[in-house]
Amino acid sequence: MSLEFENHKPQEIEGRSFEIIGQELAAAGLSLDPQLEPIIKRVIHTTADFSYADSLTFSPHVVTQALSALEAGATIVTDTNMVKAGINKPALAQLGGHLVCYISDPQVSARAKADGSTRAVAAMAKATELEGPLIFAIGNAPTALKAVVDLYQAGLLSPELVIGVPVGFVNVVEAKELLIASDLPYIVNRGRKGGSNVAAAIVNALMYLLTRK
Amino acid sequence: MSLEFENHKPQEIEGRSFEIIGQELAAAGLSLDPQLEPIIKRVIHTTADFSYADSLTFSPHVVTQALSALEAGATIVTDTNMVKAGINKPALAQLGGHLVCYISDPQVSARAKADGSTRAVAAMAKATELEGPLIFAIGNAPTALKAVVDLYQAGLLSPELVIGVPVGFVNVVEAKELLIASDLPYIVNRGRKGGSNVAAAIVNALMYLLTRK
Repeated sequence: MSLEFENHKPQEIEGRSFEIIGQELAAAGLSLDPQLEPIIKRVIHTTADFSYADSLTFSPHVVTQALSALEAGATIVTDTNMVKAGINKPALAQLGGHLVCYISDPQVSARAKADGSTRAVAAMAKATELEGPLIFAIGNAPTALKAVVDLYQAGLLSPELVIGVPVGFVNVVEAKELLIASDLPYIVNRGRKGGSNVAAAIVNALMYLLTRK
Repeated sequence: MSLEFENHKPQEIEGRSFEIIGQELAAAGLSLDPQLEPIIKRVIHTTADFSYADSLTFSPHVVTQALSALEAGATIVTDTNMVKAGINKPALAQLGGHLVCYISDPQVSARAKADGSTRAVAAMAKATELEGPLIFAIGNAPTALKAVVDLYQAGLLSPELVIGVPVGFVNVVEAKELLIASDLPYIVNRGRKGGSNVAAAIVNALMYLLTRK
């Protein structure tokens, strides 16, 4: 192992990382759908976890739909400030997109308290006030993910894409399967794994398909 | 699998999650050092990845040292805004701690350009201006981690703890091994895995040992 650090630019390191990921996927005999490959590889890049190549699940035509929404200046709604922090701001600005997270909104706290609900659920309900195409990026709260599906089924929301990658041990698998069983366009990581970093990586991968071509 | 969501409070769900993690660790025959257990379990809670039970590595007495620093109102320096976003602000306020991330600082950009370096490295150099006990939480940039070790060896920094959990495929393993080979107090995840979520989870686990007892 070399302890020498060559003075590479971040962009070069990213390119080399994607080469390594491609080589190791090929060595494992895994071949990816070319349309989904940039998303799956970016999630592996963010986690160093190759199991995502098996567990990431996509509804039909979801990438095409997502890119149309992003080109139309979609608003991305996140469940946590960590997802929001991880989304690439220059790429989003280039696309004329918007980014909101209502989890720390005082109105949302008050609403959650009044309803005996959680801030995660109240934050999704507040997103029904937004106009224009919506993309939800849920990396933490299974209750937020369930709330989006409920609001859709009640006719109160009609998002262009729901990224459902909460992480954890309680209600997480169930919330993801609820989304898959709905007819919403989705990108889901089946099972327990996911996270704020994974949600942000998926948003970034989609945006880079437009901004880095 | 039940599709019923009981209306649990987030704190109850966290408790139940930790029970499941404990049961599965026991079933796998893994017993953890009691002082390290809350940190390892919180990382597994954040990632749903049990491999962290094997790969998280701690310098001797690091938890005791870290808790002393936090009780003394340490400043936590992060390499990314995502780590910063993931750190529990009420717990930090309760401890009288501080939190900084210089990656988007215009001075840091200018310095990186002037030096032909990266923003990650220049952001760590700026932390030498800080007073009081310092904890570094590095979840993304191996170059930032190497910079902290270099600044320490040059006598310019003397942190109470370095959390070295960058993720990735290029220079990541090497940077972690550099930290382990130094005589800095460390918490490292050996290998490629880690991330902003892992760095924030470790900081939070340490703080909760003081704020939730």
